[in-house]
Amino acid sequence: MAMKQVANSAIKAIANSGSSSLLTRQLHASPGSKKIVGVFYKANEYFTKNPNFVGCVEGALGLRQWLESQGHQYIVTDDKEGPGCELEKHIPDLHVLISTPFHPAYVTAERIKKAKNLQLLLTAGIGSDHVDLKAAAEAGLTVAEVTGSNVVSVAEDELMRILILVRNFVPGYHQVITGDWNVAGIAYRAYDLEGKTVGTIGAGRIGKLLLQRLKPFNCNLLYHDRVKIDPELEKQTGAKFEEDLDAMLPKCDIIVINMPLTEKTRGMFDKDRIAKMKKGVLIVNNARGAIMDTQAVADACSSGHIAGYSGDVWYPQPAPKDHPWRYMPNQAMTPHISGTTIDAQLRYAAGVKDMLERYFKGEDFPEQNYIVKAGELAPQYR
Amino acid sequence: MAMKQVANSAIKAIANSGSSSLLTRQLHASPGSKKIVGVFYKANEYFTKNPNFVGCVEGALGLRQWLESQGHQYIVTDDKEGPGCELEKHIPDLHVLISTPFHPAYVTAERIKKAKNLQLLLTAGIGSDHVDLKAAAEAGLTVAEVTGSNVVSVAEDELMRILILVRNFVPGYHQVITGDWNVAGIAYRAYDLEGKTVGTIGAGRIGKLLLQRLKPFNCNLLYHDRVKIDPELEKQTGAKFEEDLDAMLPKCDIIVINMPLTEKTRGMFDKDRIAKMKKGVLIVNNARGAIMDTQAVADACSSGHIAGYSGDVWYPQPAPKDHPWRYMPNQAMTPHISGTTIDAQLRYAAGVKDMLERYFKGEDFPEQNYIVKAGELAPQYR
Repeated sequence: MAMKQVANSAIKAIANSGSSSLLTRQLHASPGSKKIVGVFYKANEYFTKNPNFVGCVEGALGLRQWLESQGHQYIVTDDKEGPGCELEKHIPDLHVLISTPFHPAYVTAERIKKAKNLQLLLTAGIGSDHVDLKAAAEAGLTVAEVTGSNVVSVAEDELMRILILVRNFVPGYHQVITGDWNVAGIAYRAYDLEGKTVGTIGAGRIGKLLLQRLKPFNCNLLYHDRVKIDPELEKQTGAKFEEDLDAMLPKCDIIVINMPLTEKTRGMFDKDRIAKMKKGVLIVNNARGAIMDTQAVADACSSGHIAGYSGDVWYPQPAPKDHPWRYMPNQAMTPHISGTTIDAQLRYAAGVKDMLERYFKGEDFPEQNYIVKAGELAPQYR
Repeated sequence: MAMKQVANSAIKAIANSGSSSLLTRQLHASPGSKKIVGVFYKANEYFTKNPNFVGCVEGALGLRQWLESQGHQYIVTDDKEGPGCELEKHIPDLHVLISTPFHPAYVTAERIKKAKNLQLLLTAGIGSDHVDLKAAAEAGLTVAEVTGSNVVSVAEDELMRILILVRNFVPGYHQVITGDWNVAGIAYRAYDLEGKTVGTIGAGRIGKLLLQRLKPFNCNLLYHDRVKIDPELEKQTGAKFEEDLDAMLPKCDIIVINMPLTEKTRGMFDKDRIAKMKKGVLIVNNARGAIMDTQAVADACSSGHIAGYSGDVWYPQPAPKDHPWRYMPNQAMTPHISGTTIDAQLRYAAGVKDMLERYFKGEDFPEQNYIVKAGELAPQYR
């Protein structure tokens, strides 16, 4: 990997981190025109239906005029897979790649190797697992996301999914559109959320917001994480810390996954771990699809061990037509949507603009935005 | 209407209310076997799937053994409509009729006239608008419900429906089951709940629980009712009182109907009132279908003035196959289910048993349960 001209602050960061042997591409831009590529989902006929719809290819995060007026080149596409795709064409000479978790540009080690000019990978949203972070760190790239931009959006969506599963919404809706009316066919497995035990695995930004929103529902709230949450928030929500995940699992009526996808969490909910959950457990996962063993989830839904599964994350994305989660019983799945509400789009578009502005000026980003900085991964990805 | 032997407390109640001219059937049971008829939805194959499924015909509120061991006759059926139906057969000689809002036995003035032995109408749940309350009052019948038995169930369900509409869940789910993946087709009209204005029309038991559950979502909360809620709760939820309904309507992004169906509220959301709402309003109605003008709602959904409508109440119930709400765009409807979760069933079954026990013993019911007592309607139905 060829080393580029190294900006001062990147040198400082390396010096501070002690990784003096690390080859690092410049964190900040050299003067002149940059080639910026954005990979987003395409809106087609939906684009004109909402003036705030900036998160799509056509909306391009609302950055085109601003970038082009400064002499930068800005390519946007949704064509991200396969050797002949639009993204692949620009890999050799792009400086910045912006993508989203909703339509992720998978930035593999191979692509990083080919991307000789690449300096900066920005995630419009949260969750940068579509990037091979180790390879990015080794190549001295900076990876950053718009931390906090859609945590409220995702937490709200999780609460919706909890209720959809607990209340057995989907079969009721089906009856309506098929001309049917059978209250019993819904009611025999519809419950109140009140009094149930809800456990979040991961109590970071999103998990905490979920606990706060669950508070008035009078549930038993549990959480598992590497560290305890702030005692004040623990008191406010009444959530109890569970140090041992496997000890927490059998206590929960509802389990919500709120961890990032890392090497440690990939596939961590396999057949054995699902077997430790209560029979009839409901699972909500808006974190990442690959945290689950796909087939183990489908099998447990078929057997009834999992009584309901809802989430918006899949692997890969877009989910292929034959993805088993599309066809398993008692699922309430959607495409990856929870973090890309119109409100969230406006926030992460503003966050991306802010980071590009700092990049052009040679300034640091807000510290919490860094996922890979000067060869180091953020703690949650280590 | 022939006058029956009048129990002491009923006489006292009439004396106290000043309606001395009122003919009143006995509130309390005369000794001996009673004929009790329960009208519930039928479970068929679903009955054996859950041992707590008591709210159906087969479950019969878990009262059969108890009633029969005391020499009472207990008939349960779901066959409630038309001149030849099972319910009609028992109208002439039943003493007590138990029904639910989910599969309501419509107790018309005509049926009341035919029911010469009828003394007591019990609603297993909340909302006794399936009874002609005026006719029941004039006939001196007692109407009572299990107040509070499913208010949590309904409030939770309302919050689910708010989120389903705001987040545009249904089209996402459709994509999953049809093998599609089009994030834009969902995202262009998906929003966060945070920051939106939610108004509840009616802030009784359910409306208050909804406001409490909405509190952590950081919305602007408004409520309209005949009277202000407790200042402490107003402070706790931050909800603002709107005395003038028509002034509140244009402020709301989301409107939740939380009023009983009465002569005043029947059809109150007609074309004119819907026109006063904000364009793109989302409406949740778990109260009663007949509060809305059916066709006006369908038309406003088609025009886009209403951007989403969700609820579980219809008129009549079961909703016919050609009910326009089944086919209008952006609906997230279900059959009438929100108040008949398994948890709610257990509570309202216990409440019905308690009232029957008191009825057999000649004792009064808990005061808040009365809908019609000694010729007087409860305040919310006046």
